[in-house]
Amino acid sequence: MREKILKVLRDYDLDEIKIGTLGSHSALNILKGAKDEGFETVCICRPKERIIYESFGVADEIIEVDDFKELLNDSFQDRLIKDNVILIPHGSFNAYLGQLNKIRVPFFGNRELMIWETDRFKQRKWLEMAGLRMPRSLKPEEIDGIAIVKYHGAMGGRGYFLVANRDDFYKKFEKLKAEGLVESLDDIEIQEYIVGANVYFSFFYSPMNERVELISIDRRYEAIDGIGRIPAEIQIKSGVFTSYTVIGNFPIVLRESLLAEALESAKAVVEVSKEIAYPGMVGPFCLETVFDDNAEMYVFEVSARIVAGTNVGVPISPYSYVLWGENMYMGRRIAREIRVAIEKDALGEIIY
Amino acid sequence: MREKILKVLRDYDLDEIKIGTLGSHSALNILKGAKDEGFETVCICRPKERIIYESFGVADEIIEVDDFKELLNDSFQDRLIKDNVILIPHGSFNAYLGQLNKIRVPFFGNRELMIWETDRFKQRKWLEMAGLRMPRSLKPEEIDGIAIVKYHGAMGGRGYFLVANRDDFYKKFEKLKAEGLVESLDDIEIQEYIVGANVYFSFFYSPMNERVELISIDRRYEAIDGIGRIPAEIQIKSGVFTSYTVIGNFPIVLRESLLAEALESAKAVVEVSKEIAYPGMVGPFCLETVFDDNAEMYVFEVSARIVAGTNVGVPISPYSYVLWGENMYMGRRIAREIRVAIEKDALGEIIY
Amino acid sequence: MREKILKVLRDYDLDEIKIGTLGSHSALNILKGAKDEGFETVCICRPKERIIYESFGVADEIIEVDDFKELLNDSFQDRLIKDNVILIPHGSFNAYLGQLNKIRVPFFGNRELMIWETDRFKQRKWLEMAGLRMPRSLKPEEIDGIAIVKYHGAMGGRGYFLVANRDDFYKKFEKLKAEGLVESLDDIEIQEYIVGANVYFSFFYSPMNERVELISIDRRYEAIDGIGRIPAEIQIKSGVFTSYTVIGNFPIVLRESLLAEALESAKAVVEVSKEIAYPGMVGPFCLETVFDDNAEMYVFEVSARIVAGTNVGVPISPYSYVLWGENMYMGRRIAREIRVAIEKDALGEIIY
Repeated sequence: MREKILKVLRDYDLDEIKIGTLGSHSALNILKGAKDEGFETVCICRPKERIIYESFGVADEIIEVDDFKELLNDSFQDRLIKDNVILIPHGSFNAYLGQLNKIRVPFFGNRELMIWETDRFKQRKWLEMAGLRMPRSLKPEEIDGIAIVKYHGAMGGRGYFLVANRDDFYKKFEKLKAEGLVESLDDIEIQEYIVGANVYFSFFYSPMNERVELISIDRRYEAIDGIGRIPAEIQIKSGVFTSYTVIGNFPIVLRESLLAEALESAKAVVEVSKEIAYPGMVGPFCLETVFDDNAEMYVFEVSARIVAGTNVGVPISPYSYVLWGENMYMGRRIAREIRVAIEKDALGEIIY
Repeated sequence: MREKILKVLRDYDLDEIKIGTLGSHSALNILKGAKDEGFETVCICRPKERIIYESFGVADEIIEVDDFKELLNDSFQDRLIKDNVILIPHGSFNAYLGQLNKIRVPFFGNRELMIWETDRFKQRKWLEMAGLRMPRSLKPEEIDGIAIVKYHGAMGGRGYFLVANRDDFYKKFEKLKAEGLVESLDDIEIQEYIVGANVYFSFFYSPMNERVELISIDRRYEAIDGIGRIPAEIQIKSGVFTSYTVIGNFPIVLRESLLAEALESAKAVVEVSKEIAYPGMVGPFCLETVFDDNAEMYVFEVSARIVAGTNVGVPISPYSYVLWGENMYMGRRIAREIRVAIEKDALGEIIY
Repeated sequence: MREKILKVLRDYDLDEIKIGTLGSHSALNILKGAKDEGFETVCICRPKERIIYESFGVADEIIEVDDFKELLNDSFQDRLIKDNVILIPHGSFNAYLGQLNKIRVPFFGNRELMIWETDRFKQRKWLEMAGLRMPRSLKPEEIDGIAIVKYHGAMGGRGYFLVANRDDFYKKFEKLKAEGLVESLDDIEIQEYIVGANVYFSFFYSPMNERVELISIDRRYEAIDGIGRIPAEIQIKSGVFTSYTVIGNFPIVLRESLLAEALESAKAVVEVSKEIAYPGMVGPFCLETVFDDNAEMYVFEVSARIVAGTNVGVPISPYSYVLWGENMYMGRRIAREIRVAIEKDALGEIIY
């Protein structure tokens, strides 16, 4: 597959490279970053989100599609390829990854790692190989405190729920079965719930500079944050329920000494990536963590592409400033890497 | 009234326009923005807040008053008018809106919309005409979950309180009556309480560019956020009470796809404003919303002027950067609009 | 002692001043700030944190030590003195303050005030002399609501805990004794717990400009913030426990009118500092506060040096922008003061 993409790339006119993405997730970030580095931009968007990209004026061309699935059409791809478009994948690409081999348009990054990311077992293996501390995956009989239950029907954090202990788990699991939402234990995943501060690190691995860069840090803002503003008595009397639906992100900074473990972990994740999916990590990735009251870091997820949390760091974050001393954010960092690769005639090293 | 203001404006020396405001709320933001665009600035402030404006040095002239009500005096207004001052209204102006027709000094914006904003019924009508999803307004017998109760004595969020259900409402309402804080149901407003993430959008409607711009997004920081750090058991044992007193704001970014509804809503609010209060919206406005665990947006308030949450976006926010590519924040955006209107000799279109 | 330091300083080559600090806490902020003002930088760091300072490239020289205690060695100090190094103290210096008189290397700031900061009784006296509102210090029999208990073994917020009332206190205190963590009431401190919004103000007192500057405002992010995302029922059923371990910081802005009291308090703290420790405050200091639901400010701590919360304001905060109109943050502000003092040949006024 990689050879096929590189073959497409070889016909690109390096003086006319355009940067494109799907209109969603972190497209404003990506497209603005591309423009900051002097690229023409293409936004593939649906009618309902068109207003976003028109309002901000960061797309030189808006291609409207009824469904992002049109990206799988050969003729559509031919159009992008003819225009020398490099696609920047983000979270909204994940839904189509089962059919990744149908997309011949070059991606910035490593599409094979995105497949690792979306497979829970592969992802766990990756993090384990990197030696990272993770919340334990539990069988029902192993539940010994608060646990979080994720079931396959749940989308983007919605439907995830907590159980206080083993009994509480069985009660809620029976209820889910009665409601027809799950059939058996195979349909769910139970994980130790680490109580503490959640912290999302957005890194960039630069093949051009051969280094890991910390670009920004954020904390997710979810519907469940609303319960922290409801007195306990009211919560209990009303039986309020909510979930982990992601609404946005807060910028944060981390206690400086804790950066050491985060950076070591990021390097380990990059090293392992080279073993599991040649040529390994390229560009943005995110470690999703929680720090407990011993300030110990638990990694519960890795994303092998730009995450929406990087939007907090537009146009700059404390970390990107210390490193770069100029406006630098993930979308621009991506475009800068492409620019440097073009100048070095090394585009093949960052494309897959 | 508008004619009267425009008449005052006609005698202004366009080369000597000064920007003024009351020293409170978002005055640092407004005055710094004015200076960034090359205007002289005037800050009307009380002795106790003088230290703020002296410390930051953004006012070319500080006029000390014992009470903001002095703005209602004719001689005081004559002084401002003689100095070609355009006033930028903010939240602290609201207290005087009952007597707005006594202020002949030109305002940037549309003072009639500020009156709509301060009248609960008019505000609800405005939002309904714009077709926005709002929390339901409830009669006691309609309470079917957590509800928030606002009573007229309550100031700025202080005194608002939650009830878990109908019984809880009646119990707390009787207590308020016993304490003499309210007399009847007419003195309170009950609203469905949407559990989720609160999100405040600061928009700017530019008559010069005929477009809605998203300038920044914040989340309020209130005294009640303190309870999220008190374990439930301690809350219940201690009977802790607190309220919605606003203390500050956090900068946030929103999940990108949710921006579509926010932008559509903002456009609808602007369209309706033209029907209800000629010439319609001018400049900053805010939609105060909460997103539930279906990521559905409920608008619970509209402000027809700059809000204090825009202070998070000084000197720049991810959104203002994507749109403007330079330092841009609400105070500066206002001054820029005035600057452009002066150049186009169209000041009358943005003044009321 | 001060004379001794000034004597060391007199031999410094003012054209070759370097800025150094320990690699921890806010060193990225300090070192980047120094470089922005054109200084060479030295980072003294331990092997485990070396990765941080290598990743960000802000240290012209990294001196690796096994333990920060090496700073107490004469030969090590001679090396720094020979290189004209001015050290910028931060929170990680506090551990060595008992032996401060062993460090002859000039510090930016006033090391005597750092000793006041680390002594609870002295600190309380300082704040009382400045007339600030503080949470009451309580005897067990005075507990009349939620209180926070701090015991001497607890480090950096870890181990602090809340009690709901007097009975709850005695129960938990007996448990601590049974566990051998404390012996008597002398080992603990009980403080009224103010329910509300915690707010950390980072000020800079400039002897060169003779003024107090507000540089940034943050809110701590602690492990205990995790409980605000756990439904009350789950908290109670599971008996979840966590603590105040600091993980990071959020940038915030404050309701503008509340800045007046904060600025008055900062000035009072500076005035008192001149009485208690000649020559008084120099450079960064922090007031750690909480605002209750009357928006009343309680100061529970003062830090007489840069705090980690200032990292949120790199490279700029709303407040530093309004004052300075350029990228300005605590590390750079320190370096700027040193630069100005060198130009005025007044380095002795800001060194101790």
